[in-house]
Amino acid sequence: MRMPEDVHAGSGKRLLGGIESGGTKFVCVIGRGPEEIVAEARIPTTSPEATLSQTVDFFRAEAAKYGSLAAIGVGSFGPVDLREDSATWGFITTTPKAGWEHTDVAGRLKREMGVPVAFDTDVNAAAVGEARWGAAQGLDTFVYLTVGTGIGGGGLVGGQPLHGLVHPEMGHMLLPRDQSLDPFPGVCPFHGGCLEGLASGPALLARWGRPAESLAEDHPAWALEARYLALALVNLVCTLSPQRIVLGGGVMEQAQLFPLIRKEVVALLNGYIQATAILDAIDAYIVPPALGNRSGRLGALAMAERLAASH
Amino acid sequence: MRMPEDVHAGSGKRLLGGIESGGTKFVCVIGRGPEEIVAEARIPTTSPEATLSQTVDFFRAEAAKYGSLAAIGVGSFGPVDLREDSATWGFITTTPKAGWEHTDVAGRLKREMGVPVAFDTDVNAAAVGEARWGAAQGLDTFVYLTVGTGIGGGGLVGGQPLHGLVHPEMGHMLLPRDQSLDPFPGVCPFHGGCLEGLASGPALLARWGRPAESLAEDHPAWALEARYLALALVNLVCTLSPQRIVLGGGVMEQAQLFPLIRKEVVALLNGYIQATAILDAIDAYIVPPALGNRSGRLGALAMAERLAASH
Repeated sequence: MRMPEDVHAGSGKRLLGGIESGGTKFVCVIGRGPEEIVAEARIPTTSPEATLSQTVDFFRAEAAKYGSLAAIGVGSFGPVDLREDSATWGFITTTPKAGWEHTDVAGRLKREMGVPVAFDTDVNAAAVGEARWGAAQGLDTFVYLTVGTGIGGGGLVGGQPLHGLVHPEMGHMLLPRDQSLDPFPGVCPFHGGCLEGLASGPALLARWGRPAESLAEDHPAWALEARYLALALVNLVCTLSPQRIVLGGGVMEQAQLFPLIRKEVVALLNGYIQATAILDAIDAYIVPPALGNRSGRLGALAMAERLAASH
Repeated sequence: MRMPEDVHAGSGKRLLGGIESGGTKFVCVIGRGPEEIVAEARIPTTSPEATLSQTVDFFRAEAAKYGSLAAIGVGSFGPVDLREDSATWGFITTTPKAGWEHTDVAGRLKREMGVPVAFDTDVNAAAVGEARWGAAQGLDTFVYLTVGTGIGGGGLVGGQPLHGLVHPEMGHMLLPRDQSLDPFPGVCPFHGGCLEGLASGPALLARWGRPAESLAEDHPAWALEARYLALALVNLVCTLSPQRIVLGGGVMEQAQLFPLIRKEVVALLNGYIQATAILDAIDAYIVPPALGNRSGRLGALAMAERLAASH
């Protein structure tokens, strides 16, 4: 929808806030985009009371310098409640993170800061960031998958972050495996050998007895890792038909994984999906995030920008 | 967007056309909904020339009686081109159905009938139908999966049919399997034991040597079938977070499958997705289509209705 010119200009002038809220720290930024960050803070994730009040203090202090923010976006660890008509919208819900169960995050920020607050999962935020300034510009349907301490996925479908009953939990997909080749039972306390149970950082550590980053580039760990990730990507292609897949997270800093994954995906699909993006341009189809490890915080900023534009 | 009142009234009065175009027949309907079908025809799928001209003849003859149609919707076998900016939008593309490769369906109907034409996959059409008049009313994000000669899935996400790079091909998901329990290699010419390769009607026939409908209700085929379908549904839940899953198609006419599938889905998710729809109300979460085998043709009509409302 076209907005009156003065509204556009107004929100263009005011700064935006973004919060990447993780289980270890809250990364808070103020700015207008990757090249225009005027303040940043890292606040340890301790108790909700301490962390959220330090977060509010940071934004208040900066707003006193730079003027009130147009909106704040939050990309949060979860699970979270994203249902707009829910009494607990904007809450972190049944998280295993001690003390954080059923914590109102978005509502509290909204009340204490007096600005509109956008709220989504950390991975949907990262997807919004990559769509705005990164590797998914111009796309309306794509997936962002992070492979690190956990495995999580989000994305846009028809230009909007993927919600639904709860939100995607792509790390818990169930995949084919040959237990004679890989007898490792997996580390997921719920599903054993789901994607996260087999291919997250902790899974690599448990299977090989060493942290992923200490395994040589030609260690057999990487071919197996690429295999599991490729199986998951094939299922994402068959389910969501993404225009691109962005793979981020600590484990994906092992750049040797990308060619291995691409080759496996093409082999597994076996020509069934007749799309040049897959058949002829797989290098541009399965890609790292262009915003590096800043996708989440910049995505939170982009969520704030979207919200401000709609107000 | 609100439309001027006279446009609404106009399209409300005029009839709509719907086409469920399958590999065996085109089912064509004219009407306004399930209780208001004024004409119906079944046209065998022979050559594109013969089938499409008979289709046009039917709609022209009926329009001569009832007045011009407001729009026509087509839910088609595929693969199809759904990219609105594509020169081959509305085409059936690389189908194995002989003679139908690269056939313009929607463009031809539009030109020859002179009315707006909506075009989507058969399963997205069925999803639109179930959303409008069936088992998914009031939902904006859900999946429709058909299990029959093939396995195909579609759905709405944020209220819109799921498109993307191409369109979903949910039947080709790759699933965990225990080959010591089920050594059957699968019937998919591309992937062997993908979902469709293991659990479609032809897979049941090939594995058990008898058509699915002739297997007794307590035959072990059904527990295995439920297992594979449940694994696929778990992956759909983890990827799309649907508010409901509608299971249609010939194989799902075996009503004993529903309780088996529901039980397996709950067991496989193992409490990870904290949603009452799954934990406490699975019987209302995994359901048969309310429109029976008419989801596709009525969905095509509902697509025409959506298109007419936006014109």
